[in-house]
Amino acid sequence: MSLNTFGHLFRVTTWGESHGPALGATVDGCPPGVPIDEAALQQWLDLRKPGQNKYTTQRREPDAVKILSGVFEGQTTGTPVQLMIENTDQRSKDYSEIAAKFRPGHADITYFQKYGLRDFRGGGRSSARETAARVAAGGLARAALAELAPGLQITGYMVQMGAQAIDRSRFDWEEIARNPFWCPDADAAEGWADYLDGLRKSGDSVGAVIEVTARGVPAGLGAPIYGKLDTDLAAAMMSINAVKAVEIGEGMAAATLTGSENADEITMGPDGPVYSSNHAGGILGGISTGQDVVVRFAVKPTSSILTPRRTVTVRGEETEIVTKGRHDPCVGIRAVPVGEAMMACVILDHLLLHRGQIGANRGHIG
Amino acid sequence: MSLNTFGHLFRVTTWGESHGPALGATVDGCPPGVPIDEAALQQWLDLRKPGQNKYTTQRREPDAVKILSGVFEGQTTGTPVQLMIENTDQRSKDYSEIAAKFRPGHADITYFQKYGLRDFRGGGRSSARETAARVAAGGLARAALAELAPGLQITGYMVQMGAQAIDRSRFDWEEIARNPFWCPDADAAEGWADYLDGLRKSGDSVGAVIEVTARGVPAGLGAPIYGKLDTDLAAAMMSINAVKAVEIGEGMAAATLTGSENADEITMGPDGPVYSSNHAGGILGGISTGQDVVVRFAVKPTSSILTPRRTVTVRGEETEIVTKGRHDPCVGIRAVPVGEAMMACVILDHLLLHRGQIGANRGHIG
Amino acid sequence: MSLNTFGHLFRVTTWGESHGPALGATVDGCPPGVPIDEAALQQWLDLRKPGQNKYTTQRREPDAVKILSGVFEGQTTGTPVQLMIENTDQRSKDYSEIAAKFRPGHADITYFQKYGLRDFRGGGRSSARETAARVAAGGLARAALAELAPGLQITGYMVQMGAQAIDRSRFDWEEIARNPFWCPDADAAEGWADYLDGLRKSGDSVGAVIEVTARGVPAGLGAPIYGKLDTDLAAAMMSINAVKAVEIGEGMAAATLTGSENADEITMGPDGPVYSSNHAGGILGGISTGQDVVVRFAVKPTSSILTPRRTVTVRGEETEIVTKGRHDPCVGIRAVPVGEAMMACVILDHLLLHRGQIGANRGHIG
Amino acid sequence: MSLNTFGHLFRVTTWGESHGPALGATVDGCPPGVPIDEAALQQWLDLRKPGQNKYTTQRREPDAVKILSGVFEGQTTGTPVQLMIENTDQRSKDYSEIAAKFRPGHADITYFQKYGLRDFRGGGRSSARETAARVAAGGLARAALAELAPGLQITGYMVQMGAQAIDRSRFDWEEIARNPFWCPDADAAEGWADYLDGLRKSGDSVGAVIEVTARGVPAGLGAPIYGKLDTDLAAAMMSINAVKAVEIGEGMAAATLTGSENADEITMGPDGPVYSSNHAGGILGGISTGQDVVVRFAVKPTSSILTPRRTVTVRGEETEIVTKGRHDPCVGIRAVPVGEAMMACVILDHLLLHRGQIGANRGHIG
Repeated sequence: MSLNTFGHLFRVTTWGESHGPALGATVDGCPPGVPIDEAALQQWLDLRKPGQNKYTTQRREPDAVKILSGVFEGQTTGTPVQLMIENTDQRSKDYSEIAAKFRPGHADITYFQKYGLRDFRGGGRSSARETAARVAAGGLARAALAELAPGLQITGYMVQMGAQAIDRSRFDWEEIARNPFWCPDADAAEGWADYLDGLRKSGDSVGAVIEVTARGVPAGLGAPIYGKLDTDLAAAMMSINAVKAVEIGEGMAAATLTGSENADEITMGPDGPVYSSNHAGGILGGISTGQDVVVRFAVKPTSSILTPRRTVTVRGEETEIVTKGRHDPCVGIRAVPVGEAMMACVILDHLLLHRGQIGANRGHIG
Repeated sequence: MSLNTFGHLFRVTTWGESHGPALGATVDGCPPGVPIDEAALQQWLDLRKPGQNKYTTQRREPDAVKILSGVFEGQTTGTPVQLMIENTDQRSKDYSEIAAKFRPGHADITYFQKYGLRDFRGGGRSSARETAARVAAGGLARAALAELAPGLQITGYMVQMGAQAIDRSRFDWEEIARNPFWCPDADAAEGWADYLDGLRKSGDSVGAVIEVTARGVPAGLGAPIYGKLDTDLAAAMMSINAVKAVEIGEGMAAATLTGSENADEITMGPDGPVYSSNHAGGILGGISTGQDVVVRFAVKPTSSILTPRRTVTVRGEETEIVTKGRHDPCVGIRAVPVGEAMMACVILDHLLLHRGQIGANRGHIG
Repeated sequence: MSLNTFGHLFRVTTWGESHGPALGATVDGCPPGVPIDEAALQQWLDLRKPGQNKYTTQRREPDAVKILSGVFEGQTTGTPVQLMIENTDQRSKDYSEIAAKFRPGHADITYFQKYGLRDFRGGGRSSARETAARVAAGGLARAALAELAPGLQITGYMVQMGAQAIDRSRFDWEEIARNPFWCPDADAAEGWADYLDGLRKSGDSVGAVIEVTARGVPAGLGAPIYGKLDTDLAAAMMSINAVKAVEIGEGMAAATLTGSENADEITMGPDGPVYSSNHAGGILGGISTGQDVVVRFAVKPTSSILTPRRTVTVRGEETEIVTKGRHDPCVGIRAVPVGEAMMACVILDHLLLHRGQIGANRGHIG
Repeated sequence: MSLNTFGHLFRVTTWGESHGPALGATVDGCPPGVPIDEAALQQWLDLRKPGQNKYTTQRREPDAVKILSGVFEGQTTGTPVQLMIENTDQRSKDYSEIAAKFRPGHADITYFQKYGLRDFRGGGRSSARETAARVAAGGLARAALAELAPGLQITGYMVQMGAQAIDRSRFDWEEIARNPFWCPDADAAEGWADYLDGLRKSGDSVGAVIEVTARGVPAGLGAPIYGKLDTDLAAAMMSINAVKAVEIGEGMAAATLTGSENADEITMGPDGPVYSSNHAGGILGGISTGQDVVVRFAVKPTSSILTPRRTVTVRGEETEIVTKGRHDPCVGIRAVPVGEAMMACVILDHLLLHRGQIGANRGHIG
């Protein structure tokens, strides 16, 4: 069986393969009355679009999104919104190599083992192209959030490429949009550019760490015990292709702290509780505190590389494989808008869940 | 709203508070014909039970599990299995301190902000006691797995306490049961003992990293895209109290690898594909490869400590708090059996999902 | 697999068998702040309790409900509410007859065919005792509705026993509680009493039709297309033991009407739209209109009768069966409070779903 | 919120409005390896297509279905199947009448009350056009059933139009495809033709009763208690536009039977249990017996009629309405293929659920 839906009330089902006629997202549960049109969604897809600079795959897709349902006279109606992106750059190419051989570190082999057959063209359903549908759905989620939680801002950025992390003391929100890596540290971005040039020439790839911060999240979002805000964020980020780890707030480093170090102390500000620090990443007991919600995830290097690797064929013969073609030396770059989209969907979902409650958020402090 | 169920086909709903009459797990979807009785479940609860050594809370609960439904003449019937654990050590104590003040780093404040009221006795629903219900459900999952996937073995252990990690070259499966920390490295365990003694005396606490390995998992488990095996494991582990990060295989370190380093090369063995390494942690594209499934998670230090911390009261007054009483200097220790239980539930769930498929696992290689 | 949960946001999982230690309902998603205690739930269970008059089974169960979780200081906390009813009248009796033979018209044979084993004591999970758990959950739903929709009233009653229907011109809401049949027509009730006396003596049984009306339901409840209010009511009622049909408003008779007859004409009253009739049963397009919501369901006669019937044994031998013991000549009587409970749960669930919407119910007319 | 998905493992989400660019079904959970192409689906849509004879609406839509994903080289891959039908006959017409006024007996008013806005063109989402998507999904379900349960046959037919029911003694399976009413009784079909001619001339409409029979259903399907086979069928049929009642087997008439009459006696045949009758409609305790599964549902007359009816406007003014345009005098006719499609989806879903079980269907009798 496959499970291609996420969300409790704002439910997104993505569909489509890399080289089929189209792919998209069926979004059920979007509230009515949200102003939206194709142009508003397109801006997010354009950010994610491949082929925009030399650091991402040269596949050129316009990735034009069409709204097929659920919107009438510029507003959502409360019925399902179908978002479709047609695949246009299905360059006729020879797939015999990857049709017969499994790329090490790729889903080729497991799809075959699970389903007994697979659409091998461009990775089929396991292709990163699936994430275009998430970005479209995320655009709709942002439009709804603009109505429901006006001050909320969601920003993704890369904080590490290979072993090179940013210097937090140089963190600049404005810098993020200025370099091809969504990097908040201009110096780090320069180093990454050099590193990636070398890597691209050698036909290799590298991993990365992405961070997504949501500012202005109301306190009280999250559904303990198994629909905690951090639980749903962990699932959302881990579902992105090539992600191998998810951290909330202090993340893995929380293991190294003592209780006295880790406690975010609380005082009273003019608008309610104020915290001395944010080790928690904005979430306690699975519920948002009102601080910034901070999530990080690690993206492994793409397995489509020019270095020959040992593998086996569908018939069980040992062989070697080299993956030619258009590939990203650091797929993590394109994961940034995807992480933002997932954050938007999860927060909207929990906002809707929370509204169903009698006296939602009535626990007023002070 | 609250969401207290996890699993797709093997669905576990935990219920109950730390100091209510009882807590438990309502398990729906357990296959019929699984041999089970209370003693078989009790062995797992006994492993998790607090108060067994000086490193865990001195609350003494027998944690005796009762099967109230779904089992007839020693076998499951396919109907819901109700597992109940009565709370017996509800020591009458003074809760006025935590009733009025929020512990920094604890869910006290967010439960209040979300619900407007909370059962503050012992943390109520956010208490680690809730995990006893998971361990009971996990015991049932193990019994079903023993029937469905006989060779499968699930083992949890601690690989880091504070800043002190184990030395993988000294890893010994047999050592795990021999020390109070479920530590596979006898030398590390000694160091931890000393460290924790000091910490306990100072009334502070520390975090930890737990690893859970499942050996003998069949290839083909996992439901892409949003019910991937790693997605569900990430959610399962992140839902455990105090967990702040989840890693699969190489985890955060995957960001530092190149594609050529990260590729687990494939050759043919007598029983099918054999991998040269396991950076993937046994999962590619969200589907199991047949290698060991390896998950790690970081547990933050408990927020109930003797060091005074600044906080606010329910009425918004600034104050200080010191949490006296029975607390764990390293709650990570008790998270080990919980991580195992979650792994068991997730794998069983995906095994059941996979069986529904025509020609499941028919993609035979070689 | 079994699926023992109903509801979208107000989710009820019933568990337990007729002759196990206990049965109950795990209720997840009840809003916080609802005043509730065991006595408030017990009143509904007492109405359903068997053995209250000569027309229902003489099994004597106190059916005392206990609240094990989710309630603190007299209010729900937003965490799961566990409602448990212990089985006390597990009279030791000889089950060898129904253990070996399948009762015609009973779930005995299908449970065996599905699961390969079954708890045959008193029907196990397929027993009407399971409905006690629904009544308890329905009591909690009513308490929440009292907060959320103060004017709402839910009333069930029997409108037909065997071939004898009530005369609608004699319909009297006050009469319902005065006779053992929940019959709104005093004359019909007398006829039924005579009829049932004869039936009971002959060891036979008979079917019935139950109607449940909800007055004061707000307009706008229902989630098209597959969570329509009538869809969910149909599922809820059909899930009750022995129910073979569900009607909304005009029901099967809608087939016989012309469009001009069936149209409930609309005029304006002081508080909004007013309808000339209610063929629709208060639901159009799956959404409540604000009129009375009217549901009817047919209950088949119990299959446990004294008349010998041909059947087969577990080993496939042909034989005859006579079911002795405590049985209801008209199980429909006890289905009345169950139908009310299901109506309460479904309406609360849709009220909660509806509240999640931006500007819910904002389509103001006039 | 809207809920536009049905099914547990075979999950169908329909999307689209009557007069938007397209509508369709996103089908998740279809097993891999099912042979399918657009032509195989088109045959079912052609049966449902309006405008084929004078008794159905004259809207002319080719209703050509496109497969956008999930199929590779003529087989399903186990990934989501997107089925799209473009709307082509969006005749530009004047909608000012129904934009401003609510049709009595139509969902116009409730959609407005719920959502505050609606796509009024042709009924928008509440249009019967939505059922085209169900028929496409049902075609896919049939293709999967052909692999999983080869002997299974699903047939829908009309058994009553207005007050005129068929004569069961003249029931002829072959006749069903020969007349425009899917009527198994040739004499009844003639009477209906005359009746409908008169009705059409007078601009009125009438209701109908549809029956769907599934032959060759394996014993053991159904997930008690809240995913019973009859529960899911009741929900599936009630979700179809204009349906007001659902019956299983004896249906409402079960109320009039005694227990001795209603018992389907059991003897042994060469292939297992044989029943003397089928009052149960093939389902006991929510689980299939192996007999024919028989479901009936009543369709109310369409509310779009030429007879003037009193109503109100969006602004609350009293007025009259007459609905001109292309409408069906008996929408029940077009509900027949829809009922078949829902039956196919529900049975496939339960077959997949059942396969997940250890030793599924192992309860062998004899």
